[in-house]
Amino acid sequence: MRRLFSSRLFFSQLFSTVLFSAAVLFLSVLNADEGMWLFETPPSKQVKEKYGFDLTDKWLEHVRLSSVRFGRSGSASFVSANGLIMTNHHVGAAQLQMHSTPENNMLKNGFYAKTSTDEIHCKGLECIVLNSFEDVTDILAKVTDGLSLEAAAKARSETISKIEQEEANKTNLHCEVVTLFQGGKYHLYRYKKYTDIRLVWAPEQDIAAFGGDPDNYEYPRYCVDCSFFRAYENDKPAKVEHYLKWSTNGVKENDLVFVSGFPGTTNRSFTREHLKFQRDVFFPERLSRLYRREVIYSAFAERSLENRRRISHDLDAVKNYRKRAIGQLDGLQTPSLWKSRNEINIQPDPMTKPCSELSLFYTDYCYFELGEAFNSQTFRLARQLVRLAQEKEKPNAERMREYRDGNIDSLRRGVLNDSPIYEDVEVLKLADSLTMLLDSGKSDELASKFSEFSPKELAEKLVFGSKLRDVAVRRKLLEGGISAINASDDPMIKFAIDVDSIARRLRKNYENDFEAPMTAIYANLAKERFAKFGNTIYPDATFTLRLSYGAVRGYEETGNYIKPVTNVAGMFERAESMKFKEPFNTPQNWLDNKNKLNPNTAFNLVTTNDIIGGNSGSPLINAKGEVVGLVFDGNIYSLSNNFIYTETLSRSVSVHVDIILESLKKIYNAERIVNELMEK
Amino acid sequence: MRRLFSSRLFFSQLFSTVLFSAAVLFLSVLNADEGMWLFETPPSKQVKEKYGFDLTDKWLEHVRLSSVRFGRSGSASFVSANGLIMTNHHVGAAQLQMHSTPENNMLKNGFYAKTSTDEIHCKGLECIVLNSFEDVTDILAKVTDGLSLEAAAKARSETISKIEQEEANKTNLHCEVVTLFQGGKYHLYRYKKYTDIRLVWAPEQDIAAFGGDPDNYEYPRYCVDCSFFRAYENDKPAKVEHYLKWSTNGVKENDLVFVSGFPGTTNRSFTREHLKFQRDVFFPERLSRLYRREVIYSAFAERSLENRRRISHDLDAVKNYRKRAIGQLDGLQTPSLWKSRNEINIQPDPMTKPCSELSLFYTDYCYFELGEAFNSQTFRLARQLVRLAQEKEKPNAERMREYRDGNIDSLRRGVLNDSPIYEDVEVLKLADSLTMLLDSGKSDELASKFSEFSPKELAEKLVFGSKLRDVAVRRKLLEGGISAINASDDPMIKFAIDVDSIARRLRKNYENDFEAPMTAIYANLAKERFAKFGNTIYPDATFTLRLSYGAVRGYEETGNYIKPVTNVAGMFERAESMKFKEPFNTPQNWLDNKNKLNPNTAFNLVTTNDIIGGNSGSPLINAKGEVVGLVFDGNIYSLSNNFIYTETLSRSVSVHVDIILESLKKIYNAERIVNELMEK
Repeated sequence: MRRLFSSRLFFSQLFSTVLFSAAVLFLSVLNADEGMWLFETPPSKQVKEKYGFDLTDKWLEHVRLSSVRFGRSGSASFVSANGLIMTNHHVGAAQLQMHSTPENNMLKNGFYAKTSTDEIHCKGLECIVLNSFEDVTDILAKVTDGLSLEAAAKARSETISKIEQEEANKTNLHCEVVTLFQGGKYHLYRYKKYTDIRLVWAPEQDIAAFGGDPDNYEYPRYCVDCSFFRAYENDKPAKVEHYLKWSTNGVKENDLVFVSGFPGTTNRSFTREHLKFQRDVFFPERLSRLYRREVIYSAFAERSLENRRRISHDLDAVKNYRKRAIGQLDGLQTPSLWKSRNEINIQPDPMTKPCSELSLFYTDYCYFELGEAFNSQTFRLARQLVRLAQEKEKPNAERMREYRDGNIDSLRRGVLNDSPIYEDVEVLKLADSLTMLLDSGKSDELASKFSEFSPKELAEKLVFGSKLRDVAVRRKLLEGGISAINASDDPMIKFAIDVDSIARRLRKNYENDFEAPMTAIYANLAKERFAKFGNTIYPDATFTLRLSYGAVRGYEETGNYIKPVTNVAGMFERAESMKFKEPFNTPQNWLDNKNKLNPNTAFNLVTTNDIIGGNSGSPLINAKGEVVGLVFDGNIYSLSNNFIYTETLSRSVSVHVDIILESLKKIYNAERIVNELMEK
Repeated sequence: MRRLFSSRLFFSQLFSTVLFSAAVLFLSVLNADEGMWLFETPPSKQVKEKYGFDLTDKWLEHVRLSSVRFGRSGSASFVSANGLIMTNHHVGAAQLQMHSTPENNMLKNGFYAKTSTDEIHCKGLECIVLNSFEDVTDILAKVTDGLSLEAAAKARSETISKIEQEEANKTNLHCEVVTLFQGGKYHLYRYKKYTDIRLVWAPEQDIAAFGGDPDNYEYPRYCVDCSFFRAYENDKPAKVEHYLKWSTNGVKENDLVFVSGFPGTTNRSFTREHLKFQRDVFFPERLSRLYRREVIYSAFAERSLENRRRISHDLDAVKNYRKRAIGQLDGLQTPSLWKSRNEINIQPDPMTKPCSELSLFYTDYCYFELGEAFNSQTFRLARQLVRLAQEKEKPNAERMREYRDGNIDSLRRGVLNDSPIYEDVEVLKLADSLTMLLDSGKSDELASKFSEFSPKELAEKLVFGSKLRDVAVRRKLLEGGISAINASDDPMIKFAIDVDSIARRLRKNYENDFEAPMTAIYANLAKERFAKFGNTIYPDATFTLRLSYGAVRGYEETGNYIKPVTNVAGMFERAESMKFKEPFNTPQNWLDNKNKLNPNTAFNLVTTNDIIGGNSGSPLINAKGEVVGLVFDGNIYSLSNNFIYTETLSRSVSVHVDIILESLKKIYNAERIVNELMEK
């Protein structure tokens, strides 16, 4: 479930805004806990009918303003009036890795700021809260009316930029027009943005990700996948009006629970041909890369403990992506799943042509435009510097979407982020991805680069020769603009410029041959369905705020009933069965204080909420609006949530608030946080 | 270096018999310790000139008759008059795994037969010794003279069968006509065969493969990669006239040393186009499979300790293949290596057409004929039963090569081997390889199999539905012949028959479009070169007995000189630096008895001998004909030995006899073996 990193950001763009579609699926919503609902159009009717609970405007506003989008990939929530933010350990792990040193591996050791002055500033990290929203569909419909596809896309894009900019100037909020229902709806979202985020507490990774990759997506589970951060304003803890109170009453089977968070991407309305593209092109391509990276990273990690520290975050991410992709592909390769989706067959399938066009250059697109063939932070920085300079030369509305004015500050901060970049890791990753490029026969256009050097030699030349790991050098290039970039003799800048001439062409092809027709196709389908169902349906996930409802409930697996709530005693049993070996090595702290812990303390729990990657760190909320858990995973069956939700099997997995509190008290002696959480 | 398993047997057939070619390369032989020499035409001149040592006939005969080919993949040697055989732990590991139980993991715990009656019979395991040889090139030239390519191949194949059969009848030895110099020479080899091999001693895998995959192909090293077996005849230890005496005098830098063993495959005479095929098709295809298997096996191993036990041998093998393939591909992708091989450019390159033909169906060939898409023991057994029955219906000379009379007994023993087959491992492997088949779009001809089931569902249906894991069922099918096979309703048998119709067609294509022209091309090139150099050159490795000469010598790496011999103290230092974590977890036995060990005892050593996979288990022999070490690996630079040998960097890595003796005495209290080794 862990949607850890944003290097996959373009992937989410690829399938980000897709229409909810099927009549049969719609009807089933009435019976199942399905749906990632907009706060604008909440599932009030369904919740009332199934659980007898009234979703009041006040309840919805309180939950919405307590919900936080954490960085570029996770969810979170405010849990105190002083801006305390709770999210998953794995969502905050990049920060722990960045602030680790050879002497203090914070992933391994955890972190606790005993006083507020010990809280660590996380450069480049931003959190946002959805302040207000507004439907701008009609405005955009007006400006595109009667235009050709291409002209409409241009007009829409320009108008969106204009709206975002005007609103930002007016409100001083971060404004974004989000595409919903694959272009069926456009909503203007105004976000309150926090740019000073500090690390407060995190446990040892060994307990946060207890069971590691082996137990990932499995249940029963025993993870304290939790960390605390704090939003600051003007160098002081942010005062927030809305935050979630800590529940101390526990939960029991069948209790109604909500998840409020930012699910990343679902593809529930893809047509048959589009799903085939996913099955036959997208996932095989993706998995082939994940397999090789997992092997290369693992082999590197195994050579020394320092290697392991340097690569561990990347390795965990790859393992997680791999497990998820296998689960999703397995779903797509299961004929019974296809049969259950027969209702979305459309004859002739309008996605046939765009998908077959994209198949022709999809691997090139991944390698060059998504940068998969140049996997390294040094290349990504060079690409970013080159494009920032080039795009800045154009009028705002004509730029690539991610280089428009509203995003520039974040991008600049990202480029100037001075977290460590390890030369050996860079060479490892770049050499491997260049090898992949050469293997694939896609390297023709860069042939001159390979006539003198092997992939490894080229990687060493580019990485060792580049000065971009020095943040001062990056700042100078950033400030020097296009002339500095063109004059630079940094080998990685030159390389990124070479690559970009290929990459931009592929991006153009992608946008024209696939994205534009896809947008039009799904928008048309959406219109037909709106006519039928109106606002009573939910759009596919788009990494925007959603509400999901459900209940605490176990499930059957090969004939056994798996209970919904685990406890402390179970954790120690699992550790013992694996002889406490990594990744089942309970931290020393826990072994030493085992007797202080109540063995019956609730540890993790499963609920029927409909979630997907991006929901990591979402609060699990009871009917009173209190936080009862912290979503960190889905079970193996939830992986097909991407395409279809099955209430009988799909479960989200949360850390129970009881184990967080119990461990803060008895393992970590974090009185300062306990008091803050318990404040009434 | 570990050429562990014979599931890759077909791969070695693929590139097994290739001509030595280049004039420049030949000249360099005079200066470098290059060459895997035939005992028929030993490097007497080179050894005399460089080391001043006379390779006498007596010395050569003694070493040859002491050298043992171990099973289908490794080398070994006799080290006592009572048939005691020394080989690597990793060469014998399959036996250890087979005889392990959930209660006693022999890979983990090691094994020692305190008395001869405790020695464990290894069913299906065979060892052979090269008794005599004879050049039959002229006989084959005569019967093929003037024939078309296809007719010549048929005539050659029939004559070879006839020679092998007649010689076997005459001598009661196992007779094989081996192809050398890619068809430039054919030698009749008569082998003494031992079919009753018993396990005597093996250390814990933790010390045998200390450093595991991370330290594999690296140096310095600290492995006791050794095990002892014993050949029996008539239920008694075999009396052998020739065996290697144990050296107790150590070695020093620059000492002359020999390796006598069975190098598997080298490709030193491939033309440029053939090397390109390897670089662009062969290795990328192979690595893509190895990457996914390593990930799938690792993930399975990590779920429980029992899982790990079941898959560990397969996982180790995959990791080793992967590391080796990466090293070889790296060599092929290094322009400087290509430049050093400019001398083998031939214009026009005669391999252009066969390679481009093969490229068209190479993946299909791997998936169907080599069975890569059906990776499971159950499928392999079904395939073997089906083909044994089908081929038996034909006259001997018309059968597929591996089903001719001389091989039938071995194949039958293999089919009836009752080592455990784990259902869960079978489903895991088969499901993954079927997923790969489906991903690749190569499944069209089996489409009906996938219309109802996902790969996982199909794998479960085939594995759970098959009775082939019961050896009695296999025996019945084996004895029932073709009618039993055709009448069988075992789902895996039916599946193997379906697959075979596709596989046989691809094999035909392979033989006609690639193998036959390749044979003719390299035979022609060989003739030209023979005219020039005669018997003063060595053929590519073909898993037949070879002699390599060289010296104990360290090497430079990034400016540091790496000393050739490590010691006990160094092993404990490396373990400590990795906090004794797997795979650096020194066995308890070693920790407990650390103080008894002399810290200066020589552990591993590197020498300049030219070796390759298959040499694993070869004795390292001093000028007196005594064993001074046990070859178990090459360093990272030796991986390019496949294509080119570089004396400056390429090293073979051996276990020093001193650490074997020291640990037998002080760690394992194996007095019985120590006494046997020390007998004069």
